[in-house]
Amino acid sequence: MIGIFDSGLGGLTVVNAIMKQLPGYDLLYFGDTARTPYGTKSKETVIGYSFENTDFLIKKGAEIIIIACNTASSVATRRLTEKYDIPIFEVITPAVEDALTVSGKRRIGIIGTRATVNSNIYKKKIQAKDPDARVYSNACPLLVSLVEEGWLKKPETRMIVKKYLHPLKGGQIDTLILGCTHYPLLKDIIQQKIGKRVKIIDSSLSVAAQIKEFIKKNPEIDGLLSKGGKASFFVSDITDQFTKTAKKILKKDIHLEHVVQ
Amino acid sequence: MIGIFDSGLGGLTVVNAIMKQLPGYDLLYFGDTARTPYGTKSKETVIGYSFENTDFLIKKGAEIIIIACNTASSVATRRLTEKYDIPIFEVITPAVEDALTVSGKRRIGIIGTRATVNSNIYKKKIQAKDPDARVYSNACPLLVSLVEEGWLKKPETRMIVKKYLHPLKGGQIDTLILGCTHYPLLKDIIQQKIGKRVKIIDSSLSVAAQIKEFIKKNPEIDGLLSKGGKASFFVSDITDQFTKTAKKILKKDIHLEHVVQ
Repeated sequence: MIGIFDSGLGGLTVVNAIMKQLPGYDLLYFGDTARTPYGTKSKETVIGYSFENTDFLIKKGAEIIIIACNTASSVATRRLTEKYDIPIFEVITPAVEDALTVSGKRRIGIIGTRATVNSNIYKKKIQAKDPDARVYSNACPLLVSLVEEGWLKKPETRMIVKKYLHPLKGGQIDTLILGCTHYPLLKDIIQQKIGKRVKIIDSSLSVAAQIKEFIKKNPEIDGLLSKGGKASFFVSDITDQFTKTAKKILKKDIHLEHVVQ
Repeated sequence: MIGIFDSGLGGLTVVNAIMKQLPGYDLLYFGDTARTPYGTKSKETVIGYSFENTDFLIKKGAEIIIIACNTASSVATRRLTEKYDIPIFEVITPAVEDALTVSGKRRIGIIGTRATVNSNIYKKKIQAKDPDARVYSNACPLLVSLVEEGWLKKPETRMIVKKYLHPLKGGQIDTLILGCTHYPLLKDIIQQKIGKRVKIIDSSLSVAAQIKEFIKKNPEIDGLLSKGGKASFFVSDITDQFTKTAKKILKKDIHLEHVVQ
């Protein structure tokens, strides 16, 4: 199966994208809602949690792993690929490739959690492919909480988005990477505040397209993946609010199964 | 020693209050920054974390425990007092007693995390002592994130506080309990938005006064507590932002020691 993990429920935006790109493929999702969020925490802590999440998904039958969390993708990918033999995908590289494809002015903005922005990984990956590209980034730590609360259209959310995007507007970017799987839920507000002309890269769509391509090129891996149209959702903690948020993101009722890690 | 635990750094407001009421008493603080926040999580998860935190403090030499977190106080106190033989204090009861002492109209408001408000514990404790008291509560889940980000005076914070207090204003309360150890840092804004005449009960001050009283009445416990004027601060995760927030709350530099639980 395709295994996907996230710090919480934001990674369900990746599930949405995978379901569209690869309909019928069985999915296993693990959201670490007991320890969410990751974006405010240290690198070593996030790496430790990522090992546990990956172990869980492999034990449940995952044959490939998608790290559907930008923070974990930023700080834990190398350690995970060193430890595990199965293919591991992260959400940074495909978003960087898509951004470099569409950016004419080579002025690219990134928004993400503090851990993601501090890791500088987007800047390093962009400039490894195009040393002349200019990269502007800003950490937006409150946006995850606003999404988790379902405050998707409130005036306070608009004000906070505007404040966070202000330094990027100053950089005259033409492309903006949403470097957190929660942010696609605020895409309309973000587009409005950054300006209509700026192209927005949604890393959940980028990674889904990359995986589709990978599977096409690797039929032996494709053969390992079951296609019964089933999706199982596991979480490390369960509350009514988590259920509501999951429903809001996936736009349908799902059963979240509580597992104690 | 006096052991104090919290989901993160908000409990440092209790440390401040204890240091003022009981100067010279040695303190052990544990902040569960790796798994913060607790207020959005389930009862069973918070109980499990509270056991681990208490075990840690006892191993380090705590002779009494203060649960400096309203969420853990709300959902875990009974389970902790059943398990451990040493005195365990929580922040709810002393705040309720102080509120009932000052409220003339017997119309009391509570703000807290979703877990605290959903537990209904304040209402139960208030009405156990005065069945005629009217209790109004509202969950304010975003305030913890705003405090942790240090957004103490920003216009967005003012707007969000105003929105959260709106239903309590409708209840014509004369007393408001700050049912989360982060909220004293927003006391000025809260006072302004709820109105000057409303008396604000800061549970960190209430619990510190209760402990001072308890120690005076129980000299055998007092004898167990060391008084070298030392305070040690342990956290389950460490980042620059956590260090900054701790400094902001305690108004001095402290060393946060990282322990892996």
